[in-house]
Amino acid sequence: MSDATERLLGAIAFDVDGLVPAIAQQHDTGEVLMMAWMNRDAVQLTLAEGRAVYWSRARHALWRKGETSGQTQRLHELRLDCDGDAVLLLVEQQGVACHTGRRSCFFRAWRDGDWATIAEPEIDPAKLYPPERD
Amino acid sequence: MSDATERLLGAIAFDVDGLVPAIAQQHDTGEVLMMAWMNRDAVQLTLAEGRAVYWSRARHALWRKGETSGQTQRLHELRLDCDGDAVLLLVEQQGVACHTGRRSCFFRAWRDGDWATIAEPEIDPAKLYPPERD
Repeated sequence: MSDATERLLGAIAFDVDGLVPAIAQQHDTGEVLMMAWMNRDAVQLTLAEGRAVYWSRARHALWRKGETSGQTQRLHELRLDCDGDAVLLLVEQQGVACHTGRRSCFFRAWRDGDWATIAEPEIDPAKLYPPERD
Repeated sequence: MSDATERLLGAIAFDVDGLVPAIAQQHDTGEVLMMAWMNRDAVQLTLAEGRAVYWSRARHALWRKGETSGQTQRLHELRLDCDGDAVLLLVEQQGVACHTGRRSCFFRAWRDGDWATIAEPEIDPAKLYPPERD
C-alpha cells in the first residue's frame, strides 16, 4: 500500500463491517442527492476512476453508480468529517441520483403530520433500468 | 402511539440497532454541516422540540445538539430518502456545527495525495465546552 493510500484510508474510521457512510452532494447547487456506503475498495476506486463507487449492502458488491442507469456521479472532491466516520462526495450528477427517476433520493418531507412527496420523477425509471436487467 | 407517529416512524427503516443516519444541512446555503444518528425517540423529539436531537452512539444517550455548547440546530424540515434508511434535516445552525469550532464537520478534503484542512475554527472550542464539563 502506498503512503498516500495509507493516509487516505488511515484517516477514515470504517465501522465493524468495514463501511463508512457516504453523502453525495451536487457540487455547485449544494443539493444532497443520496446517502450510500463505501468500503476501502470503493473509496480507492472512487478516487482512481474519478466517479462515485459505492458498496451495495444488499448485493454485497461494489456498485459503480450509474453503471446500469447511466446516471453517473463525476467526483469533484472527497471530504471527511472531524471524527473520520462519514465522507462527503461533491459530485457532478449526470441526470438523476434516485432509482425512482428523481433528482434526489430525499424527496419525502414531513409536513402536517404526514410524508409529502416534494419532487416528481424527471426520467421514467423503466428507461433507467431495462427490463432484461438482473 | 398516534396515527401520525405511526406514519412518521413506520416509513423510516431503522437499522438493527434501532438507528438511522441523519444528515444536517443548513437550509438556505445548502452546506452539509454534519452526520449523526437518530433513534425513534430522537426523531420524535426533533419534531416535537423543533430542533435537532440525535442519539449519541458513544454515550448511549439522547443528545440535544447544542445543549452544552449552545450551538443548536433549529429544524426547518425533516426529509426521508427513497428507501427510508437515511434522513436529511434542513436546519438553521446557530454558530458552528463542529466540536472543533468549525462551521461544518467536513473540513478535510483529499487533495494532491493528502488530507487538506479547508476550514478554520470560527469559535475557540474551549469556549464551546467549559472545562467543568463531564
